[in-house]
Amino acid sequence: MLVTNNIDEIRQARWADPTASWGLVPTMGALHAGHLSLAERAVSENDKACATIFVNPTQFAPTDDLDKYPRTLQHDLDTFESAGIDLVFTPTPDIMYPAGFGTRVLVDGITDKLEGEYRPGHFDGVTQVVTKLFNIVQPTRAYFGQKDAQQTVVLKKMVRDLNFNLDLIVCPTVREADGLAMSSRNRYLTMTQRANAPVLHAALQRAADMIVEEGVRNAEKVRQAIRKMINQTPEAKLIYASVASGVTLDELEKIHGEILISLAVRLGETRLIDNLMLKDVE
Amino acid sequence: MLVTNNIDEIRQARWADPTASWGLVPTMGALHAGHLSLAERAVSENDKACATIFVNPTQFAPTDDLDKYPRTLQHDLDTFESAGIDLVFTPTPDIMYPAGFGTRVLVDGITDKLEGEYRPGHFDGVTQVVTKLFNIVQPTRAYFGQKDAQQTVVLKKMVRDLNFNLDLIVCPTVREADGLAMSSRNRYLTMTQRANAPVLHAALQRAADMIVEEGVRNAEKVRQAIRKMINQTPEAKLIYASVASGVTLDELEKIHGEILISLAVRLGETRLIDNLMLKDVE
Repeated sequence: MLVTNNIDEIRQARWADPTASWGLVPTMGALHAGHLSLAERAVSENDKACATIFVNPTQFAPTDDLDKYPRTLQHDLDTFESAGIDLVFTPTPDIMYPAGFGTRVLVDGITDKLEGEYRPGHFDGVTQVVTKLFNIVQPTRAYFGQKDAQQTVVLKKMVRDLNFNLDLIVCPTVREADGLAMSSRNRYLTMTQRANAPVLHAALQRAADMIVEEGVRNAEKVRQAIRKMINQTPEAKLIYASVASGVTLDELEKIHGEILISLAVRLGETRLIDNLMLKDVE
Repeated sequence: MLVTNNIDEIRQARWADPTASWGLVPTMGALHAGHLSLAERAVSENDKACATIFVNPTQFAPTDDLDKYPRTLQHDLDTFESAGIDLVFTPTPDIMYPAGFGTRVLVDGITDKLEGEYRPGHFDGVTQVVTKLFNIVQPTRAYFGQKDAQQTVVLKKMVRDLNFNLDLIVCPTVREADGLAMSSRNRYLTMTQRANAPVLHAALQRAADMIVEEGVRNAEKVRQAIRKMINQTPEAKLIYASVASGVTLDELEKIHGEILISLAVRLGETRLIDNLMLKDVE
């Protein structure tokens, strides 16, 4: 496994055999079983696979947790090696954003909702860095987790609008046994918070049951049910509960079609998100 | 020569032999000898060459000449065929900007000066469409004319900032015998305007002489000399005369380093631009 922060070396490795298909797994490191599942799928579906580890400053707001975002480089490299990754790109901010840098990639309309409303500029940083990673690695397929649902919707739109020549593949959220979605931020939770954290998934499950089992089509009723479950949980503070179109991310009145149910919750100091997609609700 | 408006067909042709190098010549059609020189160079320097013909609406302001921009498709295809071009992409606006489209690529800082000041949004349209063409064709080298000097500075910055894996090659401006830069808009000139149009190049030459031969280093003096020559010309209206850094495009007080001397002039209804680059002025 070649590990390098050098863009030319990445290109040399990537184009050594131009007929090889390549998978790309962009990460910010601090790997968990969710990342591992992306890496394993990239390895299995392509001739070669490249992972990237870069805590991208442009997708963090000044009030976000950039400085304390966990860095576990050796563990991450071991994980990628064990998954069969061929190439790991580990740039520094200076390499990605050298002096004089100033180009942005903006996906309009869907980036200022949900996460984008509470993390202004977040998705502009994501589309910027992912464009660069796509151009550096030029993968055949790129792998992202369903956990960051809005990110996958935004990036799919970017790929389509800008004609990136790759397939963007969304992989299922990997969960702990009690339903908590894997996240690099879970390690910040106290034991009590960790015990309460599965309420995010439980609230999503309750919402899905209301829609699928009980036939509820009033979106506000579903949002209310989510709010109630979160607000009854010690230390939990709801940031948003959303029942939206999976395409436009607009909040729905009446539930119909492809639905994204999502929420963000603060547990103590730690911000957690989770979501659930329902296809073809009639 | 394959001519198609189908992106999948372009990709199929481009990747039929993944080891082949490809040149790209993006144009808006209405070809003249300047475009031909780009096409010939792309053919000579690459295994294969692709040209594109697309009058891109997003780089025209509402007050610009989008509707009356010349369309000469059959002549353009003949020209590309004679130059040895392998592949021509001729999309419609619907193919490039389908319903729901909404992603922008913005180069900050240098796009709101010179042409950008007088054509707001122009370079945002250029970077948007060129990003798409780069991603559709994935060329080894892309060819642009020095005539659109600011465009080349903006696109070079975009290529560097976003890590496009290609060489952007700037080719010399091709001129008529009397010095007038080739332009698709020259055909709009009346006979009298055409007779007066070489004043743009003459003013640039005078400016270069002042700097190189006479040692003038006061940029405002040079701008004044350009203004004077244009304003003495019948039907000519100066839009701007610039003596700027070739890197930042900032107007200079003292002439030093890489210099872009440029101007925009309205001759009757027709807007013409021209420029001249001086390297390493001491």
